[in-house]
Amino acid sequence: MHIIWNRYPDIKLELEAIIDLMDENAKCKDKIIENSIKELVHANGKMIRPAFTIIAAHFGDYESEKVRALSAVVELFHMATLVHDDVIDDAKLRRGRETIQSKYGKEYAVYIGDYLFCICFKILAQTASLQSIQMDSRAMSRICLGEIEQLNSRFDTDVSLKNYLRRIAGKTAELFSLSLYIGAAESGCNMRLSKRFHRIGHHVGMAFQIIDDILDYKGDEKTVGKDQGKDIREGVYNLPLIYALEKKPQDLINLLEKEAYEDADVEQIIQLVKNYEGIEKAQNLAKKYTDKAYKEIHKLPDNPYKEILLEIVTMLLERSY
Amino acid sequence: MHIIWNRYPDIKLELEAIIDLMDENAKCKDKIIENSIKELVHANGKMIRPAFTIIAAHFGDYESEKVRALSAVVELFHMATLVHDDVIDDAKLRRGRETIQSKYGKEYAVYIGDYLFCICFKILAQTASLQSIQMDSRAMSRICLGEIEQLNSRFDTDVSLKNYLRRIAGKTAELFSLSLYIGAAESGCNMRLSKRFHRIGHHVGMAFQIIDDILDYKGDEKTVGKDQGKDIREGVYNLPLIYALEKKPQDLINLLEKEAYEDADVEQIIQLVKNYEGIEKAQNLAKKYTDKAYKEIHKLPDNPYKEILLEIVTMLLERSY
Repeated sequence: MHIIWNRYPDIKLELEAIIDLMDENAKCKDKIIENSIKELVHANGKMIRPAFTIIAAHFGDYESEKVRALSAVVELFHMATLVHDDVIDDAKLRRGRETIQSKYGKEYAVYIGDYLFCICFKILAQTASLQSIQMDSRAMSRICLGEIEQLNSRFDTDVSLKNYLRRIAGKTAELFSLSLYIGAAESGCNMRLSKRFHRIGHHVGMAFQIIDDILDYKGDEKTVGKDQGKDIREGVYNLPLIYALEKKPQDLINLLEKEAYEDADVEQIIQLVKNYEGIEKAQNLAKKYTDKAYKEIHKLPDNPYKEILLEIVTMLLERSY
Repeated sequence: MHIIWNRYPDIKLELEAIIDLMDENAKCKDKIIENSIKELVHANGKMIRPAFTIIAAHFGDYESEKVRALSAVVELFHMATLVHDDVIDDAKLRRGRETIQSKYGKEYAVYIGDYLFCICFKILAQTASLQSIQMDSRAMSRICLGEIEQLNSRFDTDVSLKNYLRRIAGKTAELFSLSLYIGAAESGCNMRLSKRFHRIGHHVGMAFQIIDDILDYKGDEKTVGKDQGKDIREGVYNLPLIYALEKKPQDLINLLEKEAYEDADVEQIIQLVKNYEGIEKAQNLAKKYTDKAYKEIHKLPDNPYKEILLEIVTMLLERSY
């Protein structure tokens, strides 16, 4: 269990139960399958999304069994997308551990991801209302669309701000929204409150992803385990670069249009993005989303979990940027 | 629309409506995504699975809209697995057309498969009962497990008959069972009848896959578009080979354990499988499943669609083997 939860023993207990539930659902005659899923479950991820579901559920009638199942779905879906992302990125490591695709092969990783999707729906069908299954499946489609959109816009120097925002709204913010919304809605919160949680998830997710994308330009391998310039190398042009491109600077465009990027090119791209104030502008936009999130959180009804949500969001969004 | 349906105009009309429904669900702001899904939808597949759903539904209260949605789910799920199978197999062609992964890249194919899974559940959640969503998600998990089991047993000369049967029960028969079962159950057929349809699907699926696997040893590229020895080359040891291995023939084992298979090796493996009566025995087992399927179909209540099911199953299982 990640250390961030030590301060919140109630949430920690629930998250531990969710890990047990995921282990339970990983059970399988084929021990290779079972163990590879358990490795993911125990990879010490932060489990922010299931924690969000728990927190939102506390604003309604908290039914532990149901909340755990819904939280497990959100986390398993997140895992499935990570497994497939690692296939796409040919990633060797994730959270400091060898990825499924590196350890067992790409073929295996494709099917394990599929299997995780199926487990999600199996748990959902056993637990949630038809309405929530509809919400879930729509959200999951949008997440996939976000991933595809990112893929289709690679190496495109004309990529628009609108495209970027839509893409991260899909691939990141949607799952944060779903986590909070489903916790509230399935605990009997009214539609008004559930939708507020949905909006909070959106703002938090947008800020979170923008901050994560900024880190690609700041190099912070020690603290966040992210290689500098990784996205650029893969042709994923993120917010700082998009802002830098707004004035059509020919030096930057020429570099980006090169056939292959050498290390020196990547360094120069990063430097130019800084010069053209791409990072600064991106930080401002992240700040705007962060503020929107805080504003919506403050409007939540009084509840001990309101303060907790505020603390966790602060911790998440006040990373070094 | 495949020509086999010309004899059954009612089914053909429904299948055309299902194609329209799939097109409808493919709609997307991103035209690349929309078009690549539409290409799959219009690839002229036989659409056996949705036809099964339609046929079984005619044994209950036939609600056209519901049946079409359920049929579309079954076919879209089938497509999703094909798209991911092609990624695994690095396949260039499917039904004579360029595969998604060959045309748009593996990355894209992984996400398009994921997106198709999500669309399946989106349609299901809008249409089916919670019970059917549960049936569906369990069946889909088993299909993925079948695929993974096949992957994990590659190049294993100790692979057992039991392993093979479990693997094809998962990757093939399960979806045939689901197609028939869900059509019946969601049209108000009683459990006894719905389960009979489930068994019919199982027997048909098992026979179908065994026959398909035999073709790998007979070479029938003109009639079925399948390369001789393709499975062997990929280390997928199917029923004829498993039967041939039963008496532990050292010549065959030595060949199989070679580092890489040359064309001559594959030819020799096929010849040895024939000599050791692998094909004959596999044909006998396919015949057993076919007979079981017929027997169960005969037990269905009187209904014009009983004869149609019998004809279609006959056409499917009396392929040249």
